[in-house]
Parts: sequence; C-alpha cells; structure tokens
Amino acid sequence: MPADVVSSFISAMERKDLAHACSHLTEDCEYDNVPMGKVFGRNAVLEMLTPFVARFDEISWPVSHQVESGNLDSGVVMNERVDRFRVGDRWIELPVAGLFVIRHGQISLWRDYFDKDTYLTAIATLS
Amino acid sequence: MPADVVSSFISAMERKDLAHACSHLTEDCEYDNVPMGKVFGRNAVLEMLTPFVARFDEISWPVSHQVESGNLDSGVVMNERVDRFRVGDRWIELPVAGLFVIRHGQISLWRDYFDKDTYLTAIATLS
Repeated sequence: MPADVVSSFISAMERKDLAHACSHLTEDCEYDNVPMGKVFGRNAVLEMLTPFVARFDEISWPVSHQVESGNLDSGVVMNERVDRFRVGDRWIELPVAGLFVIRHGQISLWRDYFDKDTYLTAIATLS
Repeated sequence: MPADVVSSFISAMERKDLAHACSHLTEDCEYDNVPMGKVFGRNAVLEMLTPFVARFDEISWPVSHQVESGNLDSGVVMNERVDRFRVGDRWIELPVAGLFVIRHGQISLWRDYFDKDTYLTAIATLS
C-alpha cells in the first residue's frame, strides 16, 4: 500500500539513514517545503538533507494520522506529524501536514505544510 | 463516506452559507487554525467565521488531493487545497493542508496547516 512507502521513508529519516530514505524517492522527485521552497531530484534532496540531519542527535517524527488512496503504482498519502529534533538535551518540534504522491512504489512528490515562523523560532533556540 | 462530509462542508463555505457549513460540525467541535489558535464549539466557530466570510465577495477552495479512511461513524479525511478569497477584482490565495476527523457523520476536528506569514501578507494586500 502507498502508506507503507511513506512509513518506511519516515522510519529511515528517524534512523538518520538518508541513503535508505532517499532510495524511496524517484530520481526526478519534487520536495516542496511549502513556505520555504522546492528542491528537485533525489540527489539534490540528499545533498540538502545531509547537513540538516547532521545537526541533530536524534530525530523523531511521530505520525498522528495517516490516510491513503490508490495503490503502489499511483497513490496519494497524507499524514499529520510532529517533526521532533534533539540536540543534546533539547528537543524542538514542528507540527506538519505532509502530502506524498506515489508512483511505481516511490515518492515522486513530498510536500510539507507548516508555519515557517514556528520552525525558525524553534531552530533558533538550538544555536 | 467521510470525504463526502468534508466536500459538502467546503461547498457550503464556497457559497458563504455558514449556517449549512456549520451544520456539518459537531456541537463540541474543535477548529484548530494551527499557527493562529483554536476555537471550540460550533457556535464559536460560526461567530468567528461570520465576520471573516463577510469580508469577501467570493470564496473558492479548490481541493487538489483528498484522502480518507474509516467510515461516517469514525473517519479521517485529509486534503490539500488552495483557499482563495476575492475582494472586488483582487484574489488572494493560501496553500492549506487540512485534517478532518469525522464522528457520526459530522466534523469533530477541523485542523488547517498553513504558513501564517503567507496568510497575513496576502490579507494585508486587500486593505
């Protein structure tokens, strides 16, 4: 089912296993961080996420709701999450709603909706 | 199906028929405008939306993706929309991801994820 692809992707992100996480993305995928801009292509996403993920000692993205339609060939998954990041003994968290379009078993579009100021304010507390 | 409740709710919002829109909400519903705060109860939502909706000559909330799980007794719907509002000849628009929890055929939780600054900047262009 399409949601399994997303769950596996998120699990890999939580393990900070970016190589495995990005193996769930199509080569020409679009990653749209809605209020902050888009990145196109699996390699560009990997390059962008590598220094980002390296900042954190732990990542946890608990999903409160996840719904899907379609199948592995052509599906849509949406989820509601709290993206949590730890540095030392400090956690920050960001409420997120994500959209994932699945094509042939991979994520061709990953689009996250969140409030930019909430994110920037949280990130600033870590530095 | 749960998505039918949400589609009917959104159609009523687009007609600015708040009485009908709010008839889709449970009496004790929660409306969570994530970066801007929560409103509890159908009457409070109606009171909040009435002056808001009155500002606009036209409302259009095209849904690009909508997925659901469960049934009318207990269901979850998520959608991706662009909430568009017209005043005179000017349209503003806001990308939104919405979560709707359905209980016994009504919406008990309506939670919208969006970027507050994008919303405030757009609204400011109308005044």
